[in-house]
Amino acid sequence: MKLNMMYSFLKADIDLIEKELEKAIESHSPLLSEASLHLLQAGGKRIRPVFVLLAAKFGRYDIQTIKNVAVALELIHMASLVHDDVIDDAELRRGKPTIKAKWDNRIAMYTGDYIFAKSLEYMTNVEAVEAHKILANTIVEVCIGEIEQIKDKYRYNQNLRDYFRRIKRKTALLIAVSCQLGAIASGAEEPIHKKLFLFGYYVGMSFQITDDILDFTATEKELGKPAGSDLLQGNITLPVLFAMTDQSVKEKIILVNEETTKEEMNSLIELIKRTGAIEESHKISQRYLDKALGILEGLPNGRTKKTFRDIANYIGKRKY
Amino acid sequence: MKLNMMYSFLKADIDLIEKELEKAIESHSPLLSEASLHLLQAGGKRIRPVFVLLAAKFGRYDIQTIKNVAVALELIHMASLVHDDVIDDAELRRGKPTIKAKWDNRIAMYTGDYIFAKSLEYMTNVEAVEAHKILANTIVEVCIGEIEQIKDKYRYNQNLRDYFRRIKRKTALLIAVSCQLGAIASGAEEPIHKKLFLFGYYVGMSFQITDDILDFTATEKELGKPAGSDLLQGNITLPVLFAMTDQSVKEKIILVNEETTKEEMNSLIELIKRTGAIEESHKISQRYLDKALGILEGLPNGRTKKTFRDIANYIGKRKY
Repeated sequence: MKLNMMYSFLKADIDLIEKELEKAIESHSPLLSEASLHLLQAGGKRIRPVFVLLAAKFGRYDIQTIKNVAVALELIHMASLVHDDVIDDAELRRGKPTIKAKWDNRIAMYTGDYIFAKSLEYMTNVEAVEAHKILANTIVEVCIGEIEQIKDKYRYNQNLRDYFRRIKRKTALLIAVSCQLGAIASGAEEPIHKKLFLFGYYVGMSFQITDDILDFTATEKELGKPAGSDLLQGNITLPVLFAMTDQSVKEKIILVNEETTKEEMNSLIELIKRTGAIEESHKISQRYLDKALGILEGLPNGRTKKTFRDIANYIGKRKY
Repeated sequence: MKLNMMYSFLKADIDLIEKELEKAIESHSPLLSEASLHLLQAGGKRIRPVFVLLAAKFGRYDIQTIKNVAVALELIHMASLVHDDVIDDAELRRGKPTIKAKWDNRIAMYTGDYIFAKSLEYMTNVEAVEAHKILANTIVEVCIGEIEQIKDKYRYNQNLRDYFRRIKRKTALLIAVSCQLGAIASGAEEPIHKKLFLFGYYVGMSFQITDDILDFTATEKELGKPAGSDLLQGNITLPVLFAMTDQSVKEKIILVNEETTKEEMNSLIELIKRTGAIEESHKISQRYLDKALGILEGLPNGRTKKTFRDIANYIGKRKY
């Protein structure tokens, strides 16, 4: 089943949010609008808005209220992607040139700032003080994660804990908070906030591990960028950490640099695959997924819970 | 009289805010803390916090409440400086290496993001919904201003309106909002919010014009960076716009680029001075200052009003 078929009952509201996102990034500056629209139109799964809406189904669902949270969270995610691309010196995202590639790093930096600022405008329509505090703390954590990621690049003596802490800040927290804020902003009961936070956190961890696996197992066409891009940019992901337990593979991995050719990378990817690192990573991803599904048990039965489960399963098993 | 003598009656509270700023930027990431502290210790006039506190004197002044607004606004200002230095490729600020010079552009980008995120944490302690809306809108405007500034670099056919719009977004708005939010957060009467916004706006315009004049008239020691730095970076400021009405001077100005030597810049500065551009710029700065002082007339008499007047006069006449 395709992802968007799983929440077809939300289609009208998701379409509304897509329109709102387009409206959000319109600005008096043609350059800013163009750069932001370029990013928006590159697509994305809109996982965060979908989770916000689903979570709000456990409270008093009002799309006019909850759309502000959904739009704000997707904008924060988009802003972080733009700044990520600057750091990673990435040329392609989802098969399209990145903002830093199409314009330059300076434009990318301010486009990220601008999209982030727009997210704040949407958040000012949300009344719950708690929601603001949680979001502000989360953004601080995301920023710390981003700077730690720079430090951890090409640092081959890092351990699994470094990796998990990094992907928590980089991905899992914002997905967790999407679920949590959907519940808070719709006035769902407090135990549900916490459960949804945990569900989102576990799904987010599984999601990022899957993403890091796909960097090695998916095709360039599926990825929208060359396979092995993460490793080429010095990002040490879970499959790499597992592969490096084999000393002879590690010796090859630490030689990767900007001059590594596509052929060299492809044979290194084959080598990494042969260590069993992909299977081991899948196991960890599945463990997080199981934890996420376990949390769902404690939520009221119904269409919403079923959809959360379907999406979680999809995310853990997706091919790209 | 020295600036900090003008508001000596606020000394305890200003000291508290300085401590709070130090606390704000502490983080689990040693690199982030070090980079942020480097910026904080380079100093600054702390005009925005001072204006927040003074404005709050027109309402129910409570330092424990109002400090959140003061800290948030200074952090936003600091974050924008860090990103500015990336854009301007600046090596020095206030006589110290910039973050992008001491570390690199990537660290500077995320340090800016982080400091900005911390400002949001402080703002979540402020209850007034109106304050959040105003601040979010202002940050959006500041971002638009920053991207427009990139576009306007080395664009010699711009006019005075372009310049005024740019410095409004770059400087005046945040100073205006510092005054306005101080009044709002302390529950001052509504007509006072608007007057203080306008006062801050006019002072901010005068302040930035003075800054742009000093780039040509102050010494390298006073500036903490070489004279003519703005022009060298392609920033077309008011003195430059006035000087360019002399065609022979304009022809020399448009030749400025990264290879322009210090000697060439110094003789160009002399040329610009001889056109009378500095005096004309001073006149415009004074006109904004007079408007600011005019606004003050409509405010209740007392120590606060006198202090606002003293600071405004200082800012308009400062030598560096």
